[in-house]
Amino acid sequence: MGEFDLIERFFKRPAQLADVGIGDDCAIWSPRAGHQLAFSTDMLLEGRHFLSTVDPQSLGHKALAVNLSDLAACGATPKAFLLSLSLPRVDEAWLSGFSSGLFQLADFNQCELIGGDTTQGPLNISITVIGEVPIGQAILRSGTQVGDDLYVSGFLGDARLALEAFRGNISLPENVFKSARLRMELPTPRLRLGQALRGIATSMADISDGLLGDLKHILKASQVGAEIYLSSTTGLMLTGSLWSCPTELTMTCVLSGGDDYELLFTAAPTSAKDVQAAAMASDIQVTRIGRITDSNNLVLLDAQGQSLNKHYPSFDHFS
Amino acid sequence: MGEFDLIERFFKRPAQLADVGIGDDCAIWSPRAGHQLAFSTDMLLEGRHFLSTVDPQSLGHKALAVNLSDLAACGATPKAFLLSLSLPRVDEAWLSGFSSGLFQLADFNQCELIGGDTTQGPLNISITVIGEVPIGQAILRSGTQVGDDLYVSGFLGDARLALEAFRGNISLPENVFKSARLRMELPTPRLRLGQALRGIATSMADISDGLLGDLKHILKASQVGAEIYLSSTTGLMLTGSLWSCPTELTMTCVLSGGDDYELLFTAAPTSAKDVQAAAMASDIQVTRIGRITDSNNLVLLDAQGQSLNKHYPSFDHFS
Repeated sequence: MGEFDLIERFFKRPAQLADVGIGDDCAIWSPRAGHQLAFSTDMLLEGRHFLSTVDPQSLGHKALAVNLSDLAACGATPKAFLLSLSLPRVDEAWLSGFSSGLFQLADFNQCELIGGDTTQGPLNISITVIGEVPIGQAILRSGTQVGDDLYVSGFLGDARLALEAFRGNISLPENVFKSARLRMELPTPRLRLGQALRGIATSMADISDGLLGDLKHILKASQVGAEIYLSSTTGLMLTGSLWSCPTELTMTCVLSGGDDYELLFTAAPTSAKDVQAAAMASDIQVTRIGRITDSNNLVLLDAQGQSLNKHYPSFDHFS
Repeated sequence: MGEFDLIERFFKRPAQLADVGIGDDCAIWSPRAGHQLAFSTDMLLEGRHFLSTVDPQSLGHKALAVNLSDLAACGATPKAFLLSLSLPRVDEAWLSGFSSGLFQLADFNQCELIGGDTTQGPLNISITVIGEVPIGQAILRSGTQVGDDLYVSGFLGDARLALEAFRGNISLPENVFKSARLRMELPTPRLRLGQALRGIATSMADISDGLLGDLKHILKASQVGAEIYLSSTTGLMLTGSLWSCPTELTMTCVLSGGDDYELLFTAAPTSAKDVQAAAMASDIQVTRIGRITDSNNLVLLDAQGQSLNKHYPSFDHFS
């Protein structure tokens, strides 16, 4: 099967949203009046972002999910995406699984594949997503104020727990491993919550490199500090209810485990009810885990209000 | 140097065109009224799209150039791009050269880097470009009519000639090799010509896989055939004036050599003067090499008008 047959068979579908979709030099697309566009791109590599043993359908889901999560983190609505794919060989079963996982998530979010590129080489998936947001309503990292509350959506740390088990560093009961693995392999971008928080959240980021690492991006962009109440974070592991995870491992997974794709955001204390309403409307819990300070640093407070003097590193591809 | 320092040092510059550029979860961008957007993406791999010995500055230029060429092929004006980069290691000299070649071409075309991703892995450069075109004026592959003239811009075949020399298949005089190599390593996207052909060209594509291969895309999209006058193509090699290339090699390079990034387009015979005016305004020659027929196939005609019964394959990453 050649390059163009491969595209035709696994990736080309009639354009719905685009004026011109796959098959020309460019996709042509008409933006809606009254909206700004949001763009993000993520590259996933075998052995670094996913294990070589991963089911291709899950991988198709995850490759798009991590990109959609960036749109969610700005409060944007997904519209379209482009996919560049480097493949070691044409493996029809793999392509069929990958494209079905990809399109299932894309269709659910009405996000159309409008272009791409395929080539032969080490497995590499590069996606660029395009979203829209009403003018002036994008939620940036730079908007938080001293005194704002700090929240996270959903559960944190399970993806890292699964990774530790895959690496053989820990042994997990089967039901715990299954739940954690599902969180690692099939993350859910929090698009509805992101959009519901327009006009409420003062800053937002998605958690891909770890809670503390991504929080630091917000603190740097907004030039503020923060304190985190550790007692509020210990219950954040989904698998915590299934199994008693050692405390230190829980802290590592929750505070510096990446790959969760939950939203981390701030809101004024006066918006607390609006935050909960947005969470309910999006069928997701949100937990207040701390607040923004003028201290210019990040402090972890234990149940007694004492500062914890321990470093939890975030993920960095070159460190 | 970590991932974020690397971005800060080599790729982050103040946003000019974007409302929010590099450094947030998404870039935020306000499209102009009265315009459609054009999107394209290309992935370049070491050993497949470029030689490992290539100068990083040339590579930075070429990685963006091949993407801009897709915008040129639609008559679009470049606006912004996103860059995903997989690097085996942080090599500061390489990054400095690469980013300087990239930004030189980007700045020349006022095309702003608005986002990206970096990761560690086999060298892979994935770029998505965003352009704009006045509503309804994008030039597609599907618009040509029987009787239209067929044109190419500039010179063809030199990139392939250089590749044959690099592979050791031929030996070239030094000045010929230098010229051919320049064409392979520093292609010029024909943006001005592409834009000047709005309202004149009935269909257009850029030549990345080879003249015949890319022409077939136009013929398929427009459901027509074509005849090519071989006598018009033999003079298309830039290095032809420097050296007497064997005829069969000339034919292979001109007809199926990829990587030229010239424009292939059609126009009604009544537009012949407009085509030449657009070419002159863009400081580039265009050559009429054939015409569109209702035959549903592609015929190569020699100087005596006889059909040449020989197959020149185009480039396919999986064949």
